[in-house]
Amino acid sequence: MVTLTPGQRRLLQEPNLAHLATLMKDGMPQSTPLWVDFEDGYVYVNTAEGRQKAINMHRDPRVTLSVVDRNSMGKYVEVRGHVVEMIHEGAYDHLTKLAEKYFGPGTRNPSPQGEVRVIVKIEPLHVEGVGLD
Amino acid sequence: MVTLTPGQRRLLQEPNLAHLATLMKDGMPQSTPLWVDFEDGYVYVNTAEGRQKAINMHRDPRVTLSVVDRNSMGKYVEVRGHVVEMIHEGAYDHLTKLAEKYFGPGTRNPSPQGEVRVIVKIEPLHVEGVGLD
Repeated sequence: MVTLTPGQRRLLQEPNLAHLATLMKDGMPQSTPLWVDFEDGYVYVNTAEGRQKAINMHRDPRVTLSVVDRNSMGKYVEVRGHVVEMIHEGAYDHLTKLAEKYFGPGTRNPSPQGEVRVIVKIEPLHVEGVGLD
Repeated sequence: MVTLTPGQRRLLQEPNLAHLATLMKDGMPQSTPLWVDFEDGYVYVNTAEGRQKAINMHRDPRVTLSVVDRNSMGKYVEVRGHVVEMIHEGAYDHLTKLAEKYFGPGTRNPSPQGEVRVIVKIEPLHVEGVGLD
């Protein structure tokens, strides 16, 4: 576990989009944008069971996220880490919280009916920041 | 080699930031934001020798890029592919071209003196687009 600096944390806590890279079965990287949050030392994202990244993270916990400051292309943080837990309980409400973080209070949860959401808890193992702190 | 749709190509040709994932020696993914271009079926990025992603791509050609529309968080493309060439010739001028693409004509090349730039040519093998075409 590594500790993030205040500037690195801030980037994850403000409504900046993350790009999460996971590993395909053959080791090829896969990357998609998604919402992100940071709390008590861990990085949290939210996805749905059955999606490629969820399948990948169930198989291989190694991931990395890069996040650019929405107001300044030169400021970014990369967090490499391990998925330590994939949590179904509270995952729908967690997605609502993320929707409101990015688009304001009252934003509708975008999850279609029948989708099984999952909170992904990531332990940071290596962090690189540029233009922060 | 796979062919991108017009909407996927457009996302890469407009000044949207890419997040490039490469592989560390132990197979862990690594991801950083960078400028991107698309020409004649290939994706091009530009980095400097000695940087982690350059070291990684010399060792393992497997990469993926995800690019989000700067005006719409829900539109993105992911291109998984192989690095087919890392080219020194013309790499400084290519970086100038990228700087001007993102920040307009006359933008100064950001490369510090002594840096050895390299153009990375990527062959698309698998493409996923969301919200495009």
